[in-house]
Amino acid sequence: MPDTLNHLARILKERRDADPESSYVASLHKKGLDTILKKVGEEAAETVIAAKNGDKQQIIYETADLWFHSMVMLSHFDLTPDHILSELERRFGTSGIAERAARKK
Amino acid sequence: MPDTLNHLARILKERRDADPESSYVASLHKKGLDTILKKVGEEAAETVIAAKNGDKQQIIYETADLWFHSMVMLSHFDLTPDHILSELERRFGTSGIAERAARKK
Amino acid sequence: MPDTLNHLARILKERRDADPESSYVASLHKKGLDTILKKVGEEAAETVIAAKNGDKQQIIYETADLWFHSMVMLSHFDLTPDHILSELERRFGTSGIAERAARKK
Amino acid sequence: MPDTLNHLARILKERRDADPESSYVASLHKKGLDTILKKVGEEAAETVIAAKNGDKQQIIYETADLWFHSMVMLSHFDLTPDHILSELERRFGTSGIAERAARKK
Repeated sequence: MPDTLNHLARILKERRDADPESSYVASLHKKGLDTILKKVGEEAAETVIAAKNGDKQQIIYETADLWFHSMVMLSHFDLTPDHILSELERRFGTSGIAERAARKK
Repeated sequence: MPDTLNHLARILKERRDADPESSYVASLHKKGLDTILKKVGEEAAETVIAAKNGDKQQIIYETADLWFHSMVMLSHFDLTPDHILSELERRFGTSGIAERAARKK
Repeated sequence: MPDTLNHLARILKERRDADPESSYVASLHKKGLDTILKKVGEEAAETVIAAKNGDKQQIIYETADLWFHSMVMLSHFDLTPDHILSELERRFGTSGIAERAARKK
Repeated sequence: MPDTLNHLARILKERRDADPESSYVASLHKKGLDTILKKVGEEAAETVIAAKNGDKQQIIYETADLWFHSMVMLSHFDLTPDHILSELERRFGTSGIAERAARKK
């Protein structure tokens, strides 16, 4: 699923200025950053609770909610998932020579 | 950066059983689920704080930390980022016909 | 305001088994621990956001919400604010000789 | 334990400007508001985890940590627990006539 995050990022960007009556994403942006961040905190708590329950379906559902709302927050700042993936790559050296070397193993 | 999450997931899986002395990921798993979840909560708070500061570099850094630690949690349950991306696709219809139709626009 | 927390604790205990239709506290207990904990996480995020806004009225309001919902959680376990205050006293030696000495100053 | 919160508030105020080398509270203030708020978020997560574990000693310990760090945050803004208790009283009518009437029952 290589394009999921980029595709979702494009959808989030389009909906940012959509009609708040018809789009949840637009309604979040209209209410403002604090509402978006409240959701990030709330979904993090629900992810922790799901993990303590050990319920895999619930874990997937809540982690998706957490990532989704953190992407809405990124979109508020004109940032994209690629910025996060680049940072993770920088830390874990997953691109370039290291990646190729790893694949040859 | 299509493969970043999958590659990182493979690294996380390898390091899960590595020497806790030499691997941060292994040390998290050795300390157990509660320690991993504490980090998820902590990084969510730091993401919220970074967003309130409006500092894009800090936002990228803390969101990467949040996603990273939520992936360590997923790995604890033998779940992968693909499970999360599939859930997001299910919600946003990003694959298959909808995707192709969207691209033709 | 010496008795506020104890009085509130008594109210919370009474309402725990009240009609969920007429009592917010009863409705939280009926939905269960996970709903109560989700509120604790949510109010913590809102407290952090309020503090970043530097708005004292908002800080007071959200911290009251955070303490309130953590007291609902305590009530779920038949714990009271006194258990928390005793733990804080234990750490800070606020009772007994130290307290009396402090008052003589 | 009527005076615990007020006494703790006085200690927190005194230590706010103490030597960061010798006082944890002073070290938090020196590091700044973001560090204090990070601790509030972290302790909220630990409270949620403790509650899911159902371990009463752990719940008391973590809730005390959560209240303690939220009081350090209040102290940063020259606010005190009394501000929070007044807000809770306002909501629950625990003072004055209602309190006296309740006691006569």
